[in-house]
Amino acid sequence: MSSDVKKRPTILVTNDDGITAGGIRSLIEVARGFGDVLVVAPDSPQSGMGHAITVHDILRIREIKDVPGIREFSCSGTPVDCVKMAIYEVLKAKPDLLLSGVNHGANSSINVIYSGTMSAAVEGAVEGIPSIGFSLLDHSPDADFTAAQRVAERIIADALSKKIPQEICLNVNIPALPYEQLKGIRICRQAKANWEDEFQLRTDPMGNNYYWITGKFINNDLGEDTDVWALENGYVSVVPTQYDLTAHHAIKTLNDWNHEV
Amino acid sequence: MSSDVKKRPTILVTNDDGITAGGIRSLIEVARGFGDVLVVAPDSPQSGMGHAITVHDILRIREIKDVPGIREFSCSGTPVDCVKMAIYEVLKAKPDLLLSGVNHGANSSINVIYSGTMSAAVEGAVEGIPSIGFSLLDHSPDADFTAAQRVAERIIADALSKKIPQEICLNVNIPALPYEQLKGIRICRQAKANWEDEFQLRTDPMGNNYYWITGKFINNDLGEDTDVWALENGYVSVVPTQYDLTAHHAIKTLNDWNHEV
Repeated sequence: MSSDVKKRPTILVTNDDGITAGGIRSLIEVARGFGDVLVVAPDSPQSGMGHAITVHDILRIREIKDVPGIREFSCSGTPVDCVKMAIYEVLKAKPDLLLSGVNHGANSSINVIYSGTMSAAVEGAVEGIPSIGFSLLDHSPDADFTAAQRVAERIIADALSKKIPQEICLNVNIPALPYEQLKGIRICRQAKANWEDEFQLRTDPMGNNYYWITGKFINNDLGEDTDVWALENGYVSVVPTQYDLTAHHAIKTLNDWNHEV
Repeated sequence: MSSDVKKRPTILVTNDDGITAGGIRSLIEVARGFGDVLVVAPDSPQSGMGHAITVHDILRIREIKDVPGIREFSCSGTPVDCVKMAIYEVLKAKPDLLLSGVNHGANSSINVIYSGTMSAAVEGAVEGIPSIGFSLLDHSPDADFTAAQRVAERIIADALSKKIPQEICLNVNIPALPYEQLKGIRICRQAKANWEDEFQLRTDPMGNNYYWITGKFINNDLGEDTDVWALENGYVSVVPTQYDLTAHHAIKTLNDWNHEV
């Protein structure tokens, strides 16, 4: 063995739809081609968990045997808990790459802040790990991830060779189209949109009211440089996503306020 | 009554420590001086819930009677759920101001992304509502919020008269000092820091393992323009905080990648 044989990268794979979801299974297949795969993913669906961590409850983790040659752990926590447990308890080291998804459904625009898939990738960036979140614009449990796999292969290869800029991760969304119909990859900004929520009122068998959250996605941002535009026009969108929430441009304005107490 | 009598603003108050916490009680007192207060806050502690929303479970909301003249609702969901229910189910309109906290414990630096208190304020910004999150650097349930109340009064008055810039909210952290010892207010950026997590292993009565997440806060960012520096030096820190996670500066770098598929 030559001493300049390059060590295969360690790749952490997680998601928010849960460890048995079709999306993470398809991503594990892709990741195997690039390195040694460790899976730490939620034992139940964790969509909409954002950057939640479990501080008021216990966490459990359980090794499962599924794909030969791959270490897999199912964790009772959120996607961000999974990333933390993978780094600080399972590996006791940082992986070389973190992949999250493939999410069943879009995480473009404002959805990035509600998304457990993307919060796992953001947590990777906080830890200084090159991290990518993938989402397919198809919510169905039996969505076809064939095109998403080919897109992921392309982007992972680029990320490993060209390096993701420091302090950011990538938010990759993929239209639900056959690979041949994808027009290309566009680097985008997050569209400025929001949800008009609606709470569906129901009554339980005891006669007490409860609600389900639903809503409509409202996008009034017509910019052609947004992720929503790219996706509507057949492109894969890639948004460089940061964990520094400081609105640096607003510091000067606020400095004009009076700051004595 | 003259028609130019200005309507009192509607102020939504929420938090992540739960509706009975001392911090929110002290903030409600302050808010009453500025307008008509509506409280929608979690019925249980929701620290570390980040921007989570409840999509896989039901939500309940219950009107409670506590302070005469104030409408208060206790909600089974996360802080962000509380904001959404307040706007789309209780008020069916947007409040004029959203106040979150006062949190028991710091939400400076990277803690902003884990914080339910700050995620409620960020959700307010997404909705176009002037929003402020307040946190006191004292975790204890019986912390003294006297100084925090005076700081909140000052900042709320400024926010109402000078307007918070669009698309951002304010992350206000207050040292655990008597008011007279506070050196002033500093507009800051979020310090670049992270948590070195540690998972405490325990065994339940059935003989099964479980973990509690703990950790050390590691700050290697020595900039004197950070929130951590301000707080360590006796200043109130105010970080303008945005929900646009796009790393705009990285778009050019990524555009050099090959974008065909």
